[in-house]
Amino acid sequence: MQTTEDPLDDNAAAVGRPRRAGADRREAVIDLLGVLAYGELVAFDRMAEDARLAPTLAGRAALARMAAAEMGHFDRLVGRLRELGADPAKAMGPFMLPLDTFHEQTAPSTWLEGLVKAYVGDGFASDFYREIAAFVDEPTRQLVLDSLADTGQADFAVREVRAAITADPAVAGRLALWARRLVGEALSQAQRVAAERDALTELIIEGSGDLSGVLALLKRITQAHSARMSALGLSG
Amino acid sequence: MQTTEDPLDDNAAAVGRPRRAGADRREAVIDLLGVLAYGELVAFDRMAEDARLAPTLAGRAALARMAAAEMGHFDRLVGRLRELGADPAKAMGPFMLPLDTFHEQTAPSTWLEGLVKAYVGDGFASDFYREIAAFVDEPTRQLVLDSLADTGQADFAVREVRAAITADPAVAGRLALWARRLVGEALSQAQRVAAERDALTELIIEGSGDLSGVLALLKRITQAHSARMSALGLSG
Repeated sequence: MQTTEDPLDDNAAAVGRPRRAGADRREAVIDLLGVLAYGELVAFDRMAEDARLAPTLAGRAALARMAAAEMGHFDRLVGRLRELGADPAKAMGPFMLPLDTFHEQTAPSTWLEGLVKAYVGDGFASDFYREIAAFVDEPTRQLVLDSLADTGQADFAVREVRAAITADPAVAGRLALWARRLVGEALSQAQRVAAERDALTELIIEGSGDLSGVLALLKRITQAHSARMSALGLSG
Repeated sequence: MQTTEDPLDDNAAAVGRPRRAGADRREAVIDLLGVLAYGELVAFDRMAEDARLAPTLAGRAALARMAAAEMGHFDRLVGRLRELGADPAKAMGPFMLPLDTFHEQTAPSTWLEGLVKAYVGDGFASDFYREIAAFVDEPTRQLVLDSLADTGQADFAVREVRAAITADPAVAGRLALWARRLVGEALSQAQRVAAERDALTELIIEGSGDLSGVLALLKRITQAHSARMSALGLSG
């Protein structure tokens, strides 16, 4: 990890905040790894559960296989936390309630809802984490980007959802509403995390440079979300 | 696959059965791969679900990781079915009801019941499949043995269950009863499969040589089961 001159400290000064101590930076990196690691465990869990909704054995196997791939990411994130001298369970702890709440509030009731959630929800979260990754040290950044690599669910979800909409166009309206609910719930949990995890929030504000930088970040995420909705054949 | 002189045909003659056609042998191999593949999918499913019962994040991650490893086995079994020109979904089909029924009848209600099931139930099934593997062609045999390789749950289960019994000796009696129920339900589903899958049943009888060979096979499985019960600190 870099401990010498940090360009972000200048940004901090630019938005009138106190210069960041190394301990705060470390705390933010551990927060990022912790939320990602718990996110992988929950993604595993949820995809494993949704696999049971699959209409075919092949679909069930496909989703189970994607779930299994998440555990590979999980292991690497936990390994990095240990390298940094952090306790993985402690690092994940603060994110359990917000992530569990998100998933309880958005439990899919059909196979298609599960696929839209895997594609739209994970895509949204991944974009957000990728933006934060730009603000951390190089080994952590690379690991975060690898962890966010699609394990195949995107193509799979797009194919299945488009086929379902072709077969029954009425499905599209219901799934678009569902996607809006997913994003609303994700934002409400993200706000909760932002309010509680100062180091992580500071990292995002400082990394973005200033508040207009943060707005630009949010705009990029929103645009990518709209592109995913279109790919599914849904209008946002 | 070997298609020349088959030593098992002599055994078939010895127990007074008609000589096996190659098609029956192929059917038995596909049955074996099919039941194993569906078994892996169900094992994935069940371990993923039981992971949620874990009292700690570390325990939950350990079980989720083992579940993920089952999908690696699943993929290889499905690959072999395709190599043999079989449709994986069709090969798994006949075993869905017996395996699903077994798991519905033996859904663990506690973390410890789940661990005993993973260790005792999977151990019992694995021993049985290993015995059958001795009767099939070499590439299939090797694949079956690899698929049955322990993904770490044995050590993990033994450690956790022994620790729980040390902490509260009363737990042992309840878990011993639970293990008996698991075996009883497994045998009842195995009988159902034996009654319906002629080629597979014939393979076992012929492979064993004669009925006393089948009894010797069952005795080996029973002894290995008792050894596992002792390892857990439970008397069978």
